[in-house]
Amino acid sequence: MIFRTHMAADISGLVGESVSLAGWVARRRDHGGITFIDIRDASGIAQVVADGLATEDLRMEFCIRVMGTVRARPEGTINADLPTGTVEVAADSIEVLSPSDPLPFMLDDRVDADERTRLEYRYLDLRRPRMAANLRARSKAVSAIRRSLEGLGFLEIETPTLVRSTPEGARDVLVPSRLRPGSFYALPQSPQLFKQLLMIAGVERYFQIARCYRDEDFRADRQLEFTQLDLEGAYWGENEVQTTIEAAIAAVVQDLRGESPPLPFPRLTWQESMDRYGADKPDLRFGMEIVDLSSELTGTEFRGFAATLESNGVVRGINTGAREFPRSLADKLTEEAKALGAAGLVWMVIEPDSQLRSPVAKFLAAHEQKAIVEALAGQPGDVLLLVAGPWRTAVTVLGQLRLSLGRPEGHRDLAFVWVTDFPMFEETGDGNLTFSHHPFTSPQDVEVMRNRPLEAKARAYDVVVNGVELGSGSIRIHHPDLQRQVFDILGISAEEQESRFGWFLRALRYGTPPHGGFAFGIDRLVMVLQEEANIRQVIPFPKTQTGHDPMTMSPSPVDEGQLAELGIALVEE
Amino acid sequence: MIFRTHMAADISGLVGESVSLAGWVARRRDHGGITFIDIRDASGIAQVVADGLATEDLRMEFCIRVMGTVRARPEGTINADLPTGTVEVAADSIEVLSPSDPLPFMLDDRVDADERTRLEYRYLDLRRPRMAANLRARSKAVSAIRRSLEGLGFLEIETPTLVRSTPEGARDVLVPSRLRPGSFYALPQSPQLFKQLLMIAGVERYFQIARCYRDEDFRADRQLEFTQLDLEGAYWGENEVQTTIEAAIAAVVQDLRGESPPLPFPRLTWQESMDRYGADKPDLRFGMEIVDLSSELTGTEFRGFAATLESNGVVRGINTGAREFPRSLADKLTEEAKALGAAGLVWMVIEPDSQLRSPVAKFLAAHEQKAIVEALAGQPGDVLLLVAGPWRTAVTVLGQLRLSLGRPEGHRDLAFVWVTDFPMFEETGDGNLTFSHHPFTSPQDVEVMRNRPLEAKARAYDVVVNGVELGSGSIRIHHPDLQRQVFDILGISAEEQESRFGWFLRALRYGTPPHGGFAFGIDRLVMVLQEEANIRQVIPFPKTQTGHDPMTMSPSPVDEGQLAELGIALVEE
Repeated sequence: MIFRTHMAADISGLVGESVSLAGWVARRRDHGGITFIDIRDASGIAQVVADGLATEDLRMEFCIRVMGTVRARPEGTINADLPTGTVEVAADSIEVLSPSDPLPFMLDDRVDADERTRLEYRYLDLRRPRMAANLRARSKAVSAIRRSLEGLGFLEIETPTLVRSTPEGARDVLVPSRLRPGSFYALPQSPQLFKQLLMIAGVERYFQIARCYRDEDFRADRQLEFTQLDLEGAYWGENEVQTTIEAAIAAVVQDLRGESPPLPFPRLTWQESMDRYGADKPDLRFGMEIVDLSSELTGTEFRGFAATLESNGVVRGINTGAREFPRSLADKLTEEAKALGAAGLVWMVIEPDSQLRSPVAKFLAAHEQKAIVEALAGQPGDVLLLVAGPWRTAVTVLGQLRLSLGRPEGHRDLAFVWVTDFPMFEETGDGNLTFSHHPFTSPQDVEVMRNRPLEAKARAYDVVVNGVELGSGSIRIHHPDLQRQVFDILGISAEEQESRFGWFLRALRYGTPPHGGFAFGIDRLVMVLQEEANIRQVIPFPKTQTGHDPMTMSPSPVDEGQLAELGIALVEE
Repeated sequence: MIFRTHMAADISGLVGESVSLAGWVARRRDHGGITFIDIRDASGIAQVVADGLATEDLRMEFCIRVMGTVRARPEGTINADLPTGTVEVAADSIEVLSPSDPLPFMLDDRVDADERTRLEYRYLDLRRPRMAANLRARSKAVSAIRRSLEGLGFLEIETPTLVRSTPEGARDVLVPSRLRPGSFYALPQSPQLFKQLLMIAGVERYFQIARCYRDEDFRADRQLEFTQLDLEGAYWGENEVQTTIEAAIAAVVQDLRGESPPLPFPRLTWQESMDRYGADKPDLRFGMEIVDLSSELTGTEFRGFAATLESNGVVRGINTGAREFPRSLADKLTEEAKALGAAGLVWMVIEPDSQLRSPVAKFLAAHEQKAIVEALAGQPGDVLLLVAGPWRTAVTVLGQLRLSLGRPEGHRDLAFVWVTDFPMFEETGDGNLTFSHHPFTSPQDVEVMRNRPLEAKARAYDVVVNGVELGSGSIRIHHPDLQRQVFDILGISAEEQESRFGWFLRALRYGTPPHGGFAFGIDRLVMVLQEEANIRQVIPFPKTQTGHDPMTMSPSPVDEGQLAELGIALVEE
């Protein structure tokens, strides 16, 4: 049986022809015995006119088949908003293929059902034009990535998803084994070690659109499972990785937005990014850069600043531009700064006469005031914000205030940037070191790493768009001895190195080529390009922030007998 | 740092030029102070001549970088077997990028290491030319499928891999939830219900290269995780599905074998396939078809056949062709037939004088003998095999003997075939019914299904190549009432229907379009096209038949504290 001869959007040129359409009743109106039905399929909408047919039973979202003849619409009824707005189908017959219950919410982008209901009826939610467009965009994005990488000679290779548990900064999702009761697989947090093995295996150019799993406490933009573009190349340096990623991202932007972003993306070192934007994922769509005011304030008699500078702290500021600055905003920003760890926030308003209005104005000498205004390129009306304190606190707080005051809504503009030269290690609260990227990242200088690990830079880089981290990569360690040294610095005992990574350290011993790679989140890239505010909008069947699926009511209890086969049992709470 | 200027295979035209190559030492020979090194990278092999360089340390599979000048090989040393066999690189310097331990086995296709060792060092095993070719073939296969389907307007959509447990004929792989301790996700056996939801969601053309999971007791060609092409279309009948799958498979064959198989593939109904080949996955590369001899033997006085025919049994036979037929082979085949459930096996050798040599010859009338020989197109020298018994036993046993005696080695020739019109249900041992395909398959005739379910045919079809089932599909049920009726026939109580499938039955109530689809195993298709005998040869990192990974030693025990977080504990055995 052939259900239809044409898609709804394709009938404009067919006046006089017999067609058969199939789709949903998107709308119906009755005018004096004649029924007008908008039929919607994956291509779009066409108007059907039913004159003398029994249509009482046709309700919203009934799945129907219409046979009829395409004709020009009478003058005055042409709908310029609709691609098929000049024609309509005069129906000879309308057949209900499948009726519909009344809908839990209207399938209209203007109607905002609550998200739980939308997830419970995701199959209806996805019929909405915006969600359908997101599905198409995601498919196009993945296709563009593949086309780009295949053109560069990459092989797509599937790595296992039932793997050995390895620590990468988040909890593993465990899978009990039935054939070895009491033993477990883990779902991969990323294909990191397998892609490095593929380099050892001689693949040289690997990629995969890989499902990954992280059992974190959910944040707004995280899901228990997510999808990343994962790639790796042998005999590669930073530039080869970054050029490849830029090409893949540009292909996606081209296909989703119709124009390619300028290449190469700008590069900022991590240090520059922190200094200028107070973040390692800077939003470059707007300026409001952080300025160092320490030299302007050398020798100041204002104790608040002087004490900070004497104790190796800094004074930094941003010019937030001309804006109303009521007391309430001053209080709100001060509170925000304190919540982020600042001792306080200094605000200054440049009056029309270029005088500074500020609680600290009276403590600052005239030349200091002038120097601050000049350093921040202040104009009358501008509001300046200053933070004094340890470097990291000062820039982080100002970076956050910068976002609060300057960040554009949505993602119409795109500002891609590479952030490079990340630190190799970070201090954990307890005085130990942890890795910034992951423990397989190569240091820039082995001697520095050995002697002053906190000063060591990694051969690691992130790509950021509009303040959203899309992904990160690095040149990897390809010598087992260096890998052990990094494990040592991370405080992983020799015994633990062997039990957890022994198999990988062994693999490194067989002529491992130098290699590096990258991974970025497909969900996030599509989210930004589709101007969505959360990744659930671009994931076909997402879970809630507690990992729950309101449609299937998963996760769910299972039979105790099934668990017994796995060598496990439920524990009473 | 740029590690290389050229790939090894690309230097033939570069005589006189300086190049830098990077790769592995595939071979080294010393001739009077000069060392000849074959350097191997992903493109192939080039010969490097080191004259006056220190090369004592270079061992097999050291990762090296060579800088030098391409020159023509002296006459008499040209290697016609090698694409770069007319040139060599006179090395100026050779740098060891990474040394190698002695190898656990030779990386040579001619050397057969045992599979466990190969899996333990899979990263070395994959360097072998045959395995590297399999990786490339698999990548090309997946790319060809995508290209084919995207050209037909399909969207690639990812469905969740942490889903609710549903029964589809195999055990679910369970995943404990940390945020809901004591509850479990399942890894999907297939995206079946989600792809049906996508049809309800209006996608109309969906595909996915999907990771699926089945916790079966492992067979030679099964893995705990495997990859299938999964697709579905709305407003589709059998022909649309089959044409689409044929196009995708043809694209793969074209890219891997260099020529497309003839389209359309032949179609056989399940009944024909069973009658003629004794299997629902017939190997059509050879004839030896099963022939019904019942009418030839009507009224026979040979009790063995007469009793069978009187009790509604059949007598069927195959002509195995001219062959030696010693007693030992007769005994072996008889044993095989009995092991498969036959009461016995009748063999007949046509002597040069056209007389039958057979233990039963004396019981058969001359006209019966003649009729049997004619029905089987027997020629002098041919060996005929006959089985009498219930239809299913007779054809199945003969189908198996046919394979034992006729099946070609390897998969050089390809014989694709559709098997259609499968039965809707099968009897289980205990007198209940189970589904042949899956419980979401549409019957051909609802009335027949209700009244005589065992006679009902399903709108289900398999695609088979060389006797290997690649995949199966069906037109689905799109009405909730019909879906419930099928559940009823399967003996699933109303309560169980609600608890397991209630959410899906609800989804069917919103104007579900008629739809159908297919899934086929990527692993198996690539296995056949690469002429491999087991799927582990075409899976980058497979597990053993007990689900074990000898490289990472997974699955492995985990920390009890981790389990406690999940609300589970190990049970003492």
